[in-house]
Amino acid sequence: MTNRIRATYEIESPVGVQQAAEVLAGEQSTGTFVRLAAETDELRDRSAARIEHCVVTGESPTPSLPCRITADRYERGQVTISWPIATMGPSLPNILATVAGNLFELAELSAIRLLDLHLPREVIEANPGPRFGIAGTRDLMGVPEGPMIGTIIKPSVGLSAAETASLVRDLAEAGIDFIKDDELQSNGPACPLEDRANEVMAVLNAHADRTGKKVMYAFNITGEIDEMSRRLDLLEELGATCAMVSLQSLGLVGLRALRERSPLPVHGHRNGWGLLSRSPHIGISFPAMQKLWRLAGADHLHVNGIGNKFTESDEIVAEAARAVQTRVSDEGPAFTALPVFSSGQTAWQVAPSAEALGNEDFLFCAGGGIMSHPDGPAAGIRSLRQAAEAYRLGRTVESHATERPELLSALTAFKRK
Amino acid sequence: MTNRIRATYEIESPVGVQQAAEVLAGEQSTGTFVRLAAETDELRDRSAARIEHCVVTGESPTPSLPCRITADRYERGQVTISWPIATMGPSLPNILATVAGNLFELAELSAIRLLDLHLPREVIEANPGPRFGIAGTRDLMGVPEGPMIGTIIKPSVGLSAAETASLVRDLAEAGIDFIKDDELQSNGPACPLEDRANEVMAVLNAHADRTGKKVMYAFNITGEIDEMSRRLDLLEELGATCAMVSLQSLGLVGLRALRERSPLPVHGHRNGWGLLSRSPHIGISFPAMQKLWRLAGADHLHVNGIGNKFTESDEIVAEAARAVQTRVSDEGPAFTALPVFSSGQTAWQVAPSAEALGNEDFLFCAGGGIMSHPDGPAAGIRSLRQAAEAYRLGRTVESHATERPELLSALTAFKRK
Repeated sequence: MTNRIRATYEIESPVGVQQAAEVLAGEQSTGTFVRLAAETDELRDRSAARIEHCVVTGESPTPSLPCRITADRYERGQVTISWPIATMGPSLPNILATVAGNLFELAELSAIRLLDLHLPREVIEANPGPRFGIAGTRDLMGVPEGPMIGTIIKPSVGLSAAETASLVRDLAEAGIDFIKDDELQSNGPACPLEDRANEVMAVLNAHADRTGKKVMYAFNITGEIDEMSRRLDLLEELGATCAMVSLQSLGLVGLRALRERSPLPVHGHRNGWGLLSRSPHIGISFPAMQKLWRLAGADHLHVNGIGNKFTESDEIVAEAARAVQTRVSDEGPAFTALPVFSSGQTAWQVAPSAEALGNEDFLFCAGGGIMSHPDGPAAGIRSLRQAAEAYRLGRTVESHATERPELLSALTAFKRK
Repeated sequence: MTNRIRATYEIESPVGVQQAAEVLAGEQSTGTFVRLAAETDELRDRSAARIEHCVVTGESPTPSLPCRITADRYERGQVTISWPIATMGPSLPNILATVAGNLFELAELSAIRLLDLHLPREVIEANPGPRFGIAGTRDLMGVPEGPMIGTIIKPSVGLSAAETASLVRDLAEAGIDFIKDDELQSNGPACPLEDRANEVMAVLNAHADRTGKKVMYAFNITGEIDEMSRRLDLLEELGATCAMVSLQSLGLVGLRALRERSPLPVHGHRNGWGLLSRSPHIGISFPAMQKLWRLAGADHLHVNGIGNKFTESDEIVAEAARAVQTRVSDEGPAFTALPVFSSGQTAWQVAPSAEALGNEDFLFCAGGGIMSHPDGPAAGIRSLRQAAEAYRLGRTVESHATERPELLSALTAFKRK
């Protein structure tokens, strides 16, 4: 078993779950639409995908997705398919093409979601995984315990390098641990990365000299391979401690190339994730996808936020955050990464985030929850640390707030989610 | 107008199309969930996304996708949003993060599809585009006119390098123009790319020496950047003329890096495309996405096939094929690429493919349609060329078949689609 890759899918089919599983296994290994002369039984045994598990869970009178094959009923179920590692090797881009390739278009499926992925030791050991992870990030940030408190520079775009640095100065003085570029802020002519990095790091280095605390700033270096490489040189020279990228724009291949080259933690932004996951009928679950991103080298992974402004439920967010902290496989190195909560976060959501994980090893990013605190950003940051303290003490955030004005103001100013 | 990027979306919303468009434009530019002090009117004017067009087309009593905001009715419509190029520059990975980023998760949208993308000259000129395109591919293949006839090595996986080369010999002798690896065949230990390339190119080089015709073989070099680079060196040394990759595994960044490095045409396989496009409620249209792939450097792009074994309608396939041949923008170089038809193709589908395009500048890949022809692969290939001839002469394929036994056998053996 250990030399096979296993993928579990939730499917719906006009031809029944068992038959659909056979088509899926065939399409994603030796198959074509007619059996060819060269396709011997021996060859099938050596290379074919195999159905490991197949269970019917229900049915629907209509197809969930447009489907060339029609039927009176569309059976639903879960199937696990496995492939011998000998067919694709431990290569992540080729594993992706196998477990998430043409199968999404099969006429024998009227719904399909990739739920989980089991990768054997050979795959884990052939890929780099995160260089820093949770512990390495805490070291660089100088935050040995408790949730790391971060924010995003807003407005997302339009600020000059100097305006950005001025905001950064205020935030550093207010006691922030982490600041990030927005994913829309990269290297536009209105705020070139080089200028921004120079201005921001001048502020943060001076702040570190004064206080001993080096605030981590995740510069969005998303770009072509050679551009990212030059930007990493610059960031390293300036003493920066984090590089952010848009995961979907880089692809697994771009991400791995960045990981090999980067002396800094890789902050993985999952913008566009809704495209792969919002439909209940077609997609990839975050627990499956994040394994590939971690193996390719992401140190930090966005998981949305509890009570977020988007559409994911708290259960999905909690599951995503836990997945990032779970070992990537039962074999080989654990390769855990740092979950990043963000999207409409305030003091109300700190304890629920910690509860979802059962620990405080996460980065909590709040925009308005810090900047729009009635008593200013410093009070906003303190309110988040006080909320974490309440979690540690096993107190409700409301009762903890009675003696803590910053937390009380936050709970009053911001809506409970 | 020319210095702005425009994206057109089909949306559905619990808050109405106009308001949803405003949220979308806000989220994807300066916005956050509360207006921040630093966000001045002047800054908004300079950087904000703008609604260019907004039209209501209907409504639904229920939301098409799970949606945090509920309503009695969900208005449907089309909106066009534009961004100043100054905010993200001409960088494709950053353009993708802007036009296809967090917006897919907005609670104000209960359906969203990116339909089209208009890119200004600055973007076109900052990206390489295809190095070979249609004309360059015809030159390398030695096929000055008519559809290029290709096939896929099947079984997809399991054949050794020697077994693959032996199939290639038969196909070359049968008169094929193009052969490709399956997307599941890359560099697995059972058939390492190096061995396969050596064996296959020995056959094809010998065949070229004998006949003057160099059959194009698209080796699947999908892998990490440095692996692909080494494989390109090998392919060039062996006199190979095409490199294939899984587009979604590479990402735009990986694809562009390959383009910069590759002396061979880049054959873009879109496996996993269903994930981005099969749902009518969330996704990206192929006409929009292929612009980015062409700009990053794909020479050949898979478009599925007329009467395919998957789920796309013939209209969608025809639109996709035409898109690949249409100039990438009304400004700058045309950057057209070669559409590749495949999936369950036989002599029945040649003329409909040519009709969909109005020309014969396409690569027609048939597996069973060649290998399972009752009179063997050579007859299979001849049947496809005869079908193209029928199109050129303005005859039906059936009437043309009366004097052409290979075509007649094909039409009899294979099901009309």
